Amino acid sequence: MSSIFSNIISRKIPAYIIAEDEHNIAFLDINPNALGHTLCVPKTEVDKIFDLKDKDYQHLMLFSKQVATALEKAIDCKRVGIAVIGLEVPHAHVHLIPLHEMKEMDFQHKIVCSPEEFNQLALQIKSYL
Amino acid sequence: MSSIFSNIISRKIPAYIIAEDEHNIAFLDINPNALGHTLCVPKTEVDKIFDLKDKDYQHLMLFSKQVATALEKAIDCKRVGIAVIGLEVPHAHVHLIPLHEMKEMDFQHKIVCSPEEFNQLALQIKSYL
Repeated sequence: MSSIFSNIISRKIPAYIIAEDEHNIAFLDINPNALGHTLCVPKTEVDKIFDLKDKDYQHLMLFSKQVATALEKAIDCKRVGIAVIGLEVPHAHVHLIPLHEMKEMDFQHKIVCSPEEFNQLALQIKSYL
Repeated sequence: MSSIFSNIISRKIPAYIIAEDEHNIAFLDINPNALGHTLCVPKTEVDKIFDLKDKDYQHLMLFSKQVATALEKAIDCKRVGIAVIGLEVPHAHVHLIPLHEMKEMDFQHKIVCSPEEFNQLALQIKSYL
């Protein structure tokens, strides 16, 4: 069975997509820790990030840097944090989280956005890419 | 003033070093979230990770992958998580955290190791590098 992220990549499941290239896709986390919380996902469906081939891993991390740089311009924050955990969805993904304070790295700390807010955020971030 | 990490790199401050190359160093976090919690630090003293030049950033991320692969072999864990926050020490660093469960990604969750345990852990991890 395809992962939820593969279904987003194939457009079977909708998402607030903000960037995509040959190897990776980035979209807003629907259950965000902070405004602009984004997931960067390799199109290759691998469970653990460190099981990606070096080349694919390097693509993903550079892609994440480009998205993070746009996030930092688009969203009011002190910096953009990175988290890779992977205990839930078995398809490697990089969390990019615009941070004001430590608690936004805590995955118990959640905010709620409306579809309009997600759409507006996605547009705002894309304008810096 | 040099950062605490630059002082570790120049050996002015001791650390449980587990890997080092031309561009980066890895040592055990002295205040770990979990057994084997390691920091990977670029020798270039930059505050924000995404301010590293692409080449230096790529070096750091690939170095972190190599260290994480050793960690996963040396430490009993489900996988190795990544966190980059940077709200405290203004010298970019990648946390590699051997994970059993989500709470080990929480920086309020700490464990205590003795110097002997740190030494033993460092040796164990180095044996896989």
